[in-house]
Amino acid sequence: MVQKPEAIAGIDLGGTSIKALIVDGKYKILAAVKRKTKATAKADPLIDEIASVVEEASKQAGLKVKDLFAVSIGAPGTIDTKRGIVLEAPNLGWKDVKLADELKKLLSVPILVDNDVNVGVVGEHALGAGEKVSELVGIFVGTGIGGGIIIHGELYGGGRGGAGEIGHTVILADGPACSCGHRGCAEALASRTAMERDVLDAIKGGQKSVVPKILKEKEKDRITSSVIQAAIEQKDAVMTEVFKRAQHYLGILVANMVNLLDPERVVIGGGLAERFGEDFVAPIRQTAYEYFLHGRDAKRIKVLPGALGDKSGALGAAVLAHKRLG
Amino acid sequence: MVQKPEAIAGIDLGGTSIKALIVDGKYKILAAVKRKTKATAKADPLIDEIASVVEEASKQAGLKVKDLFAVSIGAPGTIDTKRGIVLEAPNLGWKDVKLADELKKLLSVPILVDNDVNVGVVGEHALGAGEKVSELVGIFVGTGIGGGIIIHGELYGGGRGGAGEIGHTVILADGPACSCGHRGCAEALASRTAMERDVLDAIKGGQKSVVPKILKEKEKDRITSSVIQAAIEQKDAVMTEVFKRAQHYLGILVANMVNLLDPERVVIGGGLAERFGEDFVAPIRQTAYEYFLHGRDAKRIKVLPGALGDKSGALGAAVLAHKRLG
Repeated sequence: MVQKPEAIAGIDLGGTSIKALIVDGKYKILAAVKRKTKATAKADPLIDEIASVVEEASKQAGLKVKDLFAVSIGAPGTIDTKRGIVLEAPNLGWKDVKLADELKKLLSVPILVDNDVNVGVVGEHALGAGEKVSELVGIFVGTGIGGGIIIHGELYGGGRGGAGEIGHTVILADGPACSCGHRGCAEALASRTAMERDVLDAIKGGQKSVVPKILKEKEKDRITSSVIQAAIEQKDAVMTEVFKRAQHYLGILVANMVNLLDPERVVIGGGLAERFGEDFVAPIRQTAYEYFLHGRDAKRIKVLPGALGDKSGALGAAVLAHKRLG
Repeated sequence: MVQKPEAIAGIDLGGTSIKALIVDGKYKILAAVKRKTKATAKADPLIDEIASVVEEASKQAGLKVKDLFAVSIGAPGTIDTKRGIVLEAPNLGWKDVKLADELKKLLSVPILVDNDVNVGVVGEHALGAGEKVSELVGIFVGTGIGGGIIIHGELYGGGRGGAGEIGHTVILADGPACSCGHRGCAEALASRTAMERDVLDAIKGGQKSVVPKILKEKEKDRITSSVIQAAIEQKDAVMTEVFKRAQHYLGILVANMVNLLDPERVVIGGGLAERFGEDFVAPIRQTAYEYFLHGRDAKRIKVLPGALGDKSGALGAAVLAHKRLG
């Protein structure tokens, strides 16, 4: 039965959608609502939208918002977790948005905010591929590359909550330009955005590819995971090569994390891992094992695809709320 | 006054010397002994030598070996810290040496073993440039590059004690070959060994340099820190360029650590930092600040040269003994 006092709304706030789950104290999903959104420079309409999604999901779960133990949000960008402020979120166009305070005015329940990938890693750690090992690294590959580090069983924030920017560690010094303004970050080499750049460059350079045809057929203007999958299934040489190269860099990135932090497990999450699963992760794992320093017992460290799909963020946000307020 | 029960022997075991300190419970140095050694494939003679150095240092401190609270050793290589086994130490030519057990037979006091750079970082954290901040990263640059991570005030070992191999994180994928068998590790780009390779390559390539002359004058066959210093003081273009490039890569390495772990402080130790101090660290710091992701408050993270010089290892070993046995 539902233990009402422990029901939590976990929210995954993205650039294009809000995903909300209501879970009970044992993380059983009582309701799920997904709503498309438009990011605007002004934060108010999106905050109103979050409140409305929480209300809809609560109703669906047979609860009132005031019955919720907390609303816990994973938001894309740099977060001041103590004060619930979104310091900078380029995907939302937000800067210094007091998300927790504003939302609390509307919902009158405790509000928590953390980084979207951090909460995704917490979700995988507690309820998914992490199986609650004590030391874990999560790497989420999508339009960007984000990460989270579990140390002694808890999400590690570092000195001021900024830890986990795995995607902005440089693995090819002075390499391709990254969205962050620097060069050679993992994100600039192995994210979906980097793959898109490399495919389009190859086509501009005169290489033949089915990707433009697929984009047209699917009526897409971005090379999404489904476009990548279709191109690879059609044995497109350009897409296959670009995908392989990204996996090579991701393997090196995983090895860097292992040589540095010696975790028990590395989980690869995000859209590509969700779509391709083991096909995405196997070549990454192989390169990683090659680059592990302590070779002789390398395989004790498992490198696995995420198990929660696109629910990792909302579930992880709920887990974090229990940990922080429970 | 000396509190005899708390006196500890801290040992820095290197490829060419054993450095031993006897410290009291407050880390006041009561005696210091340094002895040149020769690494041999057989471990026994070197273990006998360590025992003899401990006896000499204890005597110098007015103590008997049996009065020591512990003998704590920093050894170069991969260590099984729980069992005090040196799993692999290329610099010593050791493999699976039960250092703690063997030495305990000779000295009959508790013996601890950890990685030499790990204990160096513990030393800097507790007694040097770390000033006991809670979250700290230490990077030691010498013939290799080693590191150590302080998390929640304690040395972080990861799942099985292998954490901290900062020198073997890749920052230039598919770059120069590293001693570890991989390519593009920080150690292959910015260690003294990497600088030596680059200087010799430049000379072979026909560039003029005073380095060969300095090597002859100093009767050295390796480009040591003192050779580097002499060449830079003589405004040698090759050495200056190589040194600068290494600092650039070290800056990127520091930024990687900060973007990943968000420490409060980064300490740069080892022979080059000891010799050049701020002249070595300032350009590293500058590049690091440029590459920090959270730019607007980057400068809150201090990047400092080590403060303990070549005593960091022996002092850190002593600190670790108090923490683990105290």
